[in-house]
Amino acid sequence: MSYTYEFSRPAVTVDLVAFRIHDDALEVYLIRRPEPPFKGHWTLPGGFVHENEALEATALRILSDKTEIGDVYLEQLATFGAPDRDPRDRTISVAYFAILADGDAAGTDGDWFAADAPPELGFDHTSILTVAVQRLRAKLTYSDLGLAFMPETFTLTELQRSFEAVLGQALDKRNFRKSILSSGRVEATGEKSTGGAHPPAMLYRRADGT
Amino acid sequence: MSYTYEFSRPAVTVDLVAFRIHDDALEVYLIRRPEPPFKGHWTLPGGFVHENEALEATALRILSDKTEIGDVYLEQLATFGAPDRDPRDRTISVAYFAILADGDAAGTDGDWFAADAPPELGFDHTSILTVAVQRLRAKLTYSDLGLAFMPETFTLTELQRSFEAVLGQALDKRNFRKSILSSGRVEATGEKSTGGAHPPAMLYRRADGT
Repeated sequence: MSYTYEFSRPAVTVDLVAFRIHDDALEVYLIRRPEPPFKGHWTLPGGFVHENEALEATALRILSDKTEIGDVYLEQLATFGAPDRDPRDRTISVAYFAILADGDAAGTDGDWFAADAPPELGFDHTSILTVAVQRLRAKLTYSDLGLAFMPETFTLTELQRSFEAVLGQALDKRNFRKSILSSGRVEATGEKSTGGAHPPAMLYRRADGT
Repeated sequence: MSYTYEFSRPAVTVDLVAFRIHDDALEVYLIRRPEPPFKGHWTLPGGFVHENEALEATALRILSDKTEIGDVYLEQLATFGAPDRDPRDRTISVAYFAILADGDAAGTDGDWFAADAPPELGFDHTSILTVAVQRLRAKLTYSDLGLAFMPETFTLTELQRSFEAVLGQALDKRNFRKSILSSGRVEATGEKSTGGAHPPAMLYRRADGT
């Protein structure tokens, strides 16, 4: 059975906003475009959605093709479809954001930049990045998204520094601890951190045990 | 300048989850599909994205073509792109949800159904509706989305009943009032409601004055 469409078909891409925290700063992964349009500009990594490929699978493929990043938290951000956003042709971009627990995660084609002071980006990628940072900051307060930046076990000081990096502001230590402990999102492991420049501190993990 | 794509182009649609509150119940607007696939099934209103049409413009066009609904709150929900979600061909749907302040808002092609007990829907529209109800409930507690259901002025009792309709559960009157007043999202108009079966009560409006 065949159907005809009265409307032209846009190209559909997935663009990926990959975040990590490194040296107490929120960073985003960018690549230099090797071809026009915007050749030589920094952009978010992205690519066309393949036939028979789910959107999230496209996002994971881009992540594994363009970075050496392993397990991540992945969430659909929003879809960007302004008619003139790609000079080639109508292109609709489904944007995802990824959170990497490994602050040393490496990219193969690009580099990491401070998320609040990126270079000028090609396409509408500056807007996409802005929306992603807003979403991240908003969800930090009412979800356990902030834990996605953490390794398996962490101290509350490390977690607070991660929240501060995302929010771009200092938090009161006592209020932070009270709030995070009463949220039920973390639980003590019963073990203490060793080594490093700090005295031993209680190690915590995600309360769901993952 | 022309470019070639190595990937097939999907069709792109916008599907719309339009909510209203009517007789203290959260309702969703559905239409019966006049043609295959899923001919005769209830579905969310939707349509193809036109050339040179922004995605939000598609959503507004669908709203005005298929309903007699005027001003609404409109927000992008998520994009659904499972490869087999449309038996015709690869079709990616950008879903929006709309909130109607007018509980008597009329549709031209369809009808209103209880959002938590809809008929079986065509395509993956049951999933889209489920995600929309979840988003609505989640955002009720940390945004002023709930006010979008209200007319220009309203009593706190009317607002509470609207929240209860969305959440599907009763709320404590004193806690609700304390929480909504301390949120700064509403302000007293200085006037009282008249008429109706209830004694006069203070009328409120959105704190941004709109």
